[in-house]
Amino acid sequence: MYRALVLSAHADSLIVMRRTVIGVMGSGENASPQAITWARQLGALIAAENWVLLSGGRNVGVMNAVSIGANQAGGLVIGVLHTPDAAEASDGIDVAIVTGMGSARNNINVLSSDAVIACGNAEGGTLSEIALALKAKKSVVLLTEDAEARQFLQRIGRGMLHIANSPEEAVALTRQLLEDTEDTEDTVQR
Amino acid sequence: MYRALVLSAHADSLIVMRRTVIGVMGSGENASPQAITWARQLGALIAAENWVLLSGGRNVGVMNAVSIGANQAGGLVIGVLHTPDAAEASDGIDVAIVTGMGSARNNINVLSSDAVIACGNAEGGTLSEIALALKAKKSVVLLTEDAEARQFLQRIGRGMLHIANSPEEAVALTRQLLEDTEDTEDTVQR
Amino acid sequence: MYRALVLSAHADSLIVMRRTVIGVMGSGENASPQAITWARQLGALIAAENWVLLSGGRNVGVMNAVSIGANQAGGLVIGVLHTPDAAEASDGIDVAIVTGMGSARNNINVLSSDAVIACGNAEGGTLSEIALALKAKKSVVLLTEDAEARQFLQRIGRGMLHIANSPEEAVALTRQLLEDTEDTEDTVQR
Amino acid sequence: MYRALVLSAHADSLIVMRRTVIGVMGSGENASPQAITWARQLGALIAAENWVLLSGGRNVGVMNAVSIGANQAGGLVIGVLHTPDAAEASDGIDVAIVTGMGSARNNINVLSSDAVIACGNAEGGTLSEIALALKAKKSVVLLTEDAEARQFLQRIGRGMLHIANSPEEAVALTRQLLEDTEDTEDTVQR
Repeated sequence: MYRALVLSAHADSLIVMRRTVIGVMGSGENASPQAITWARQLGALIAAENWVLLSGGRNVGVMNAVSIGANQAGGLVIGVLHTPDAAEASDGIDVAIVTGMGSARNNINVLSSDAVIACGNAEGGTLSEIALALKAKKSVVLLTEDAEARQFLQRIGRGMLHIANSPEEAVALTRQLLEDTEDTEDTVQR
Repeated sequence: MYRALVLSAHADSLIVMRRTVIGVMGSGENASPQAITWARQLGALIAAENWVLLSGGRNVGVMNAVSIGANQAGGLVIGVLHTPDAAEASDGIDVAIVTGMGSARNNINVLSSDAVIACGNAEGGTLSEIALALKAKKSVVLLTEDAEARQFLQRIGRGMLHIANSPEEAVALTRQLLEDTEDTEDTVQR
Repeated sequence: MYRALVLSAHADSLIVMRRTVIGVMGSGENASPQAITWARQLGALIAAENWVLLSGGRNVGVMNAVSIGANQAGGLVIGVLHTPDAAEASDGIDVAIVTGMGSARNNINVLSSDAVIACGNAEGGTLSEIALALKAKKSVVLLTEDAEARQFLQRIGRGMLHIANSPEEAVALTRQLLEDTEDTEDTVQR
Repeated sequence: MYRALVLSAHADSLIVMRRTVIGVMGSGENASPQAITWARQLGALIAAENWVLLSGGRNVGVMNAVSIGANQAGGLVIGVLHTPDAAEASDGIDVAIVTGMGSARNNINVLSSDAVIACGNAEGGTLSEIALALKAKKSVVLLTEDAEARQFLQRIGRGMLHIANSPEEAVALTRQLLEDTEDTEDTVQR
């Protein structure tokens, strides 16, 4: 599932291969200052890894901060909006996927991500995305100050949910998880 | 939001008004024996209240038990399936809503329910439905043996999530919640 | 796929088996007077066949007329709403399925229907439902005054789209299509 | 809605603004050789305009040809897949949006596109996308050999559906439609 940017040497072939997508999930209006600071850093770090950033795409909270952070660092940012148009899209988004599906789009966020980072409070839409990601067998990295959420979600995550203490640690964990997946796929293919 | 079955006295008017829908959410393959026993009882109790039962509609676990319980007690059962056909529908279902949307259909389950009862382990799809229900401002009644889940979810539920210790208590709580909603709506309308 | 209402003789078994669902698709605000008259009649005829009526559920146009027609004739009516709540539901609906998905819910309408009747102009949402039904290998009965639409859609329907000239003919065609499907399934099972 | 790629002069601001997205819709397995040739050319022309290409993302037919055409010309390609994983994604895709929603994803394709080009036969999923686009007030450019489809769809399109005779003409029409939209938005804002 881990894919690098590959510039082709042949005129007749593809210029770019499918990119690794990392979804960052977090609150909108209810995001804490800490979560927003982390999100901005996460965006920059994800761009530096040459991963595509996917978020819920709105112009508030974690969604907005992570999108602007990645955009300013030169990354490609996809916003998967719950609204039927892009009027409330974050300025940090390159491409808006407009679903018009309300919170049902949360499942698209996790299915489209090679790994999911949940940033801030594990409530509401973010909690649904953690749960949907685990159900879809996606690795989740949880970056939160909420000790009770950490404990509960790590138990039900059964090895698929990992705790990070900083944006740097979240990205390092994600890199490791992608490499583990790649190794598994290589093994399976042989 | 609470609606009773009304037989009209006029030949020219509606025979039935919109029905109250109660969604029961729970695991499929991973459901515990306790959860399945509870689900069967919940189905019968919901039918006795003349509420429509809505479930995820599959022929396993809580979804299957609650549907059969309600059907055998004479209730109307709607199954909202995640699959693109009804091949794996519970035999207890009267009407299959076939979404073909995978877990994105979980949001339809909660939006269509006047109140949501979560039965058994609060994990995977069930946890996503609890989270989506709270986000949509729906009352949730949680019937589980998992003390940690009770504590965490009650905290993040901020007064919208209620703990039950038995199917009877879950249905009594649901009845009270529907009446409270009705009172609020009456007050608002005046 | 054709299922009759079966009252069980055994106390321990199901009271009702899964019901046949017929979807009637048509315009809202843009519905013609002819389409609305037809829709009212279709609703009554569908109820008389003991089929469940499924519609887009709104309180305007064909959706509203067919729902009220079926309700007044004693039928069970399911409205699959595109909105995130039931504020604009037709009074003829027994059970509202609230999707909050906009026009993406059109695919649920057709997947949930054993056969689809398109009533009135084959445009906008209705045309999308005809197309989605044909893609999902569902039989479509088209009741419209638009000769050009009849000709174009019958050609691309490749034997799956049938033309009716009246509500009575539409229901007779639907009954025949359900019986043909049942025969095929019986043959396949042997 | 028309947005150009803007390189910022300020270190503290966004590097890229939201991109214009053009959706190209067409058949998979049933695509004609003519439609596939057109799709390949459309992809290259769309990339040359610096628009993002959005398609249904599968590795067959029009979806595959247009994606590879755009990729080889250096364009950014988004594939919105109907499947729950990316196993059948076209090699031409940069970013896979994985919906797992079946044909309900067709509405996402049109809502996410600033304009829609339908390439080849206007049947099945493609016809649903034309209808959903018109319902969502999106401009549609139709490139097809089917004279009957042209005539019927142009009539119901009421000025929103435009006929092209070649990929070059389709892209020129699309450019004009985007400029007209921009002018309207400018006028409205004043």
